[in-house]
Amino acid sequence: MATGNNMMKPHYIAIAAMTVDGKIAKSSTHLSTDWTSKEDKKFLKQVLDTCDAVILGRNTYETAKALLVKRKRNCIVFTRRHGAGAVKGEKLTFMKPTKRALEAFVKERKFRRLAVLGGSHVYSWCLRNGFMNELYLTIEPVIFGDGLSLFSETPPKKQLHLRTKKILNKKGTLLLHYDLR
Amino acid sequence: MATGNNMMKPHYIAIAAMTVDGKIAKSSTHLSTDWTSKEDKKFLKQVLDTCDAVILGRNTYETAKALLVKRKRNCIVFTRRHGAGAVKGEKLTFMKPTKRALEAFVKERKFRRLAVLGGSHVYSWCLRNGFMNELYLTIEPVIFGDGLSLFSETPPKKQLHLRTKKILNKKGTLLLHYDLR
Repeated sequence: MATGNNMMKPHYIAIAAMTVDGKIAKSSTHLSTDWTSKEDKKFLKQVLDTCDAVILGRNTYETAKALLVKRKRNCIVFTRRHGAGAVKGEKLTFMKPTKRALEAFVKERKFRRLAVLGGSHVYSWCLRNGFMNELYLTIEPVIFGDGLSLFSETPPKKQLHLRTKKILNKKGTLLLHYDLR
Repeated sequence: MATGNNMMKPHYIAIAAMTVDGKIAKSSTHLSTDWTSKEDKKFLKQVLDTCDAVILGRNTYETAKALLVKRKRNCIVFTRRHGAGAVKGEKLTFMKPTKRALEAFVKERKFRRLAVLGGSHVYSWCLRNGFMNELYLTIEPVIFGDGLSLFSETPPKKQLHLRTKKILNKKGTLLLHYDLR
């Protein structure tokens, strides 16, 4: 899935679906995507098709595994649990998240475009460590109240810029596209 | 500031400014609005000029007091502290939040359009108890990470519908307008 992009530095694209009140999941044990619209799922597939690999946390991976395997995505799974460092076949790598390890691996595999799929800790880690150049944020017209926020901690101050906004369906699912500088 | 609106039932309009990651404030002791754009502040003033009264929590009131007094807004301040039930002059009423007390007061004063200004507990209470017909949500292109979420608890399931979206300035402050049913 190489894009033929000749940029020297790999490009990291965070993709998240959020409720109107800023939640990405009901809890860390409820990561299902039954509340996101089919239009958002279609958009996600389209972006992932342009990416060489996805970066995601262990819980998010477990939830999305079937689909990621089916689509033969290259997966970098951040984990601090037993098994970190293990490469499980060509497509799946478990990694303790360090800047050096990620950069080396991405370079070795010649990945150019990578999608950051969450959850909160992974989004936060990528933002803090400079692995987030863009953010696609889908806002579904639902409210959770309680739940997991997009980020799990205060990141360094970043300048965001809204590049585009698009309504995906009649009920008003909104897709926002931000640049981070 | 009566609007001449002949609807029998009073209309409640929640207005909130949120970061990209769904936070309305850095903490309950940091409620300043120094992070919202001047375009959002202008919009807020315009909507409040169409409302007969504002509903807000004690902390939010203390933060916004000077401006609310200056503009002679009718203020209903929800509080569980000492002083609830006290009417302090014509414009200012402290109230323990109960459905019956709010309805009776709004009827007595013949308020037709009321703005719900937060914080999280007040937004949640109004949503749960049926005092939220619309939601204006401004999304500023900043990230807080930690902070207060829009709602403080899981509300009953509500159907939201995105009515309009508007970009307020060049950096990409976004104003969303939802109907709640």
